[in-house]
Amino acid sequence: MPSLKQIVEPIRFESDQLQLIDQLKLPSDVNWVPINTVEKGADAIRDMVVRGAPAIGVTAAYSYALAFKSEDPSDARLKYVRDTLLNTRPTAVNLAWAIDRMESKVTAYLKSDGMFYQYLLDEAKLIHEEDRQMNRKIGAHALNLIEKGSRALTHCNAGSLATGGYGTATGVLYSAWEADLLEHVWVDETRPFLQGARLTAFELDRAGLNYTLICDNMAASIMARKEIDFVVVGSDRIVSNGDVANKIGTYALAVMCHFHGIPFYVAAPSSTLDFSLENGSQIPIEERRRTELGEFNGRSIAINQQKIFNPGFDVTPANLVSAIITEQGIHRFPYTKSLESLK
Amino acid sequence: MPSLKQIVEPIRFESDQLQLIDQLKLPSDVNWVPINTVEKGADAIRDMVVRGAPAIGVTAAYSYALAFKSEDPSDARLKYVRDTLLNTRPTAVNLAWAIDRMESKVTAYLKSDGMFYQYLLDEAKLIHEEDRQMNRKIGAHALNLIEKGSRALTHCNAGSLATGGYGTATGVLYSAWEADLLEHVWVDETRPFLQGARLTAFELDRAGLNYTLICDNMAASIMARKEIDFVVVGSDRIVSNGDVANKIGTYALAVMCHFHGIPFYVAAPSSTLDFSLENGSQIPIEERRRTELGEFNGRSIAINQQKIFNPGFDVTPANLVSAIITEQGIHRFPYTKSLESLK
Repeated sequence: MPSLKQIVEPIRFESDQLQLIDQLKLPSDVNWVPINTVEKGADAIRDMVVRGAPAIGVTAAYSYALAFKSEDPSDARLKYVRDTLLNTRPTAVNLAWAIDRMESKVTAYLKSDGMFYQYLLDEAKLIHEEDRQMNRKIGAHALNLIEKGSRALTHCNAGSLATGGYGTATGVLYSAWEADLLEHVWVDETRPFLQGARLTAFELDRAGLNYTLICDNMAASIMARKEIDFVVVGSDRIVSNGDVANKIGTYALAVMCHFHGIPFYVAAPSSTLDFSLENGSQIPIEERRRTELGEFNGRSIAINQQKIFNPGFDVTPANLVSAIITEQGIHRFPYTKSLESLK
Repeated sequence: MPSLKQIVEPIRFESDQLQLIDQLKLPSDVNWVPINTVEKGADAIRDMVVRGAPAIGVTAAYSYALAFKSEDPSDARLKYVRDTLLNTRPTAVNLAWAIDRMESKVTAYLKSDGMFYQYLLDEAKLIHEEDRQMNRKIGAHALNLIEKGSRALTHCNAGSLATGGYGTATGVLYSAWEADLLEHVWVDETRPFLQGARLTAFELDRAGLNYTLICDNMAASIMARKEIDFVVVGSDRIVSNGDVANKIGTYALAVMCHFHGIPFYVAAPSSTLDFSLENGSQIPIEERRRTELGEFNGRSIAINQQKIFNPGFDVTPANLVSAIITEQGIHRFPYTKSLESLK
């Protein structure tokens, strides 16, 4: 049976500090960045030292706890901490989810006693461990969808690096690999930030999977050659009707899958669900800085940096999603009723 | 009425030398590379100093003439010159077309007399000028397809830089701009070689068109937002049934256009037609070196340079092509009969 070599985990809490792998430096350098304040945690999220919706949530939870290491939970402090973390990135809903969950502990705590910081830290560690467990469950459920000898494609990095560990989309791939169902993975490089080339290829290489890196624009012709059996991606936010926000380029893949009759799966923990929104048109889409696209290592590849459009995400309508895989199981279109069970 | 500022032309013949804009250095530097032997011409084609099917044809014609500047047309020399030029890039059929045309002049010449080199040079100049004229005609025919206020998208560079001048796909855009029909152009950056970012954005900027640079994976979501009215691309080879080989990523765009009900146009001179092949599965697809994808300016973006796939082209089936625009007019599916008139 195939085995997994090493699963890279991006987040540790050690020696009273949050430690994050600097994902901006991968794959050439594996550096750990220490985080000991809420401000540094917010910076790490904004600057994409850590990225991926579940990993952003876990980082926010630890950063929230760190904010109260030597400060009392005054109303002003609570508001400051919430705003500092929330105003980093707009699309991933796991960020607000983690902040809400930490705040709910604050409210519960104010009625009790003990070490406040330690109490919040325990909750952050619980969120972290729950995320790992949810990823494992997502991977286990997905085995029901995958046939032996399958060739998969994934986009961006919904990997161990994007979560508390193991990964959502790559968790599906890892589970399928260990179950000897997976033959090969095509990895989209994922312009402009190259999360596929830099991060997914890195972690699949470490894990020992059989993979090939391609440009985003090659996926369709590989589908036409019948060398892709399913596509699996993560998500930054899934709304009530099952519309899915994910890394730019996801929608294009869903359209290509539809045309070629290939299943298109979304793997995400229930913390990715946003029941406050009815459909995908209501999801805020982050526009990122133009130089992400127009420069590479500080060298310009475009003559005019003003004439660039760089949306970080797109929305895939629910009817193009073959299944949403959560820790609770496999959800199918129409999604509204099935997803409600995750509330 | 809108006007065109500057149309960049990539090929000049001056002072008894072929001069090529070094397209590897654009947009940061505009350098001219002198070519005075057939070997240097072949190197320029292979290394992509010049690229784009029609521009490759024109360069091959001049290089062919240069090969006989001080050499007689012995059988051995003729074979050497043909092989040297032909063994540079496999997909663009204009290369073989130009070599065949120059060879046919050799055969005609052997029966006459005069300055052999000058005679071949005149033919190369004629090929160059004919290519410019064909591009102008393609642009004029395309006006029948384009409504006022249109927003276009183009992929790669089927531009003035890819031809003898003016461009096939960008020729369509230039004509539409001058006719006040075109509002805006989305430019795909075109990974991995970035011909869209480096070349098309460069020439549209010089020409003064209203354009925005995006990543290839963004086109689908911009279509979903109804901000693209048509897509126009060039071609490296069109076969008898209308199947189209063009830069990798073209097929993906054709699928997206089909899904969104957007016209997908191919603009190409008749020198791009290959009647020796029946369908696109017979077209040789060049696989280019992996570092084009895995490195940027010598810095690695992937952990394992062996696990990369880099096909330079893909094939779009004729039934996804709304129209093929040649210098003869507008051709529609099914193409076999209509394209036969170009023989």
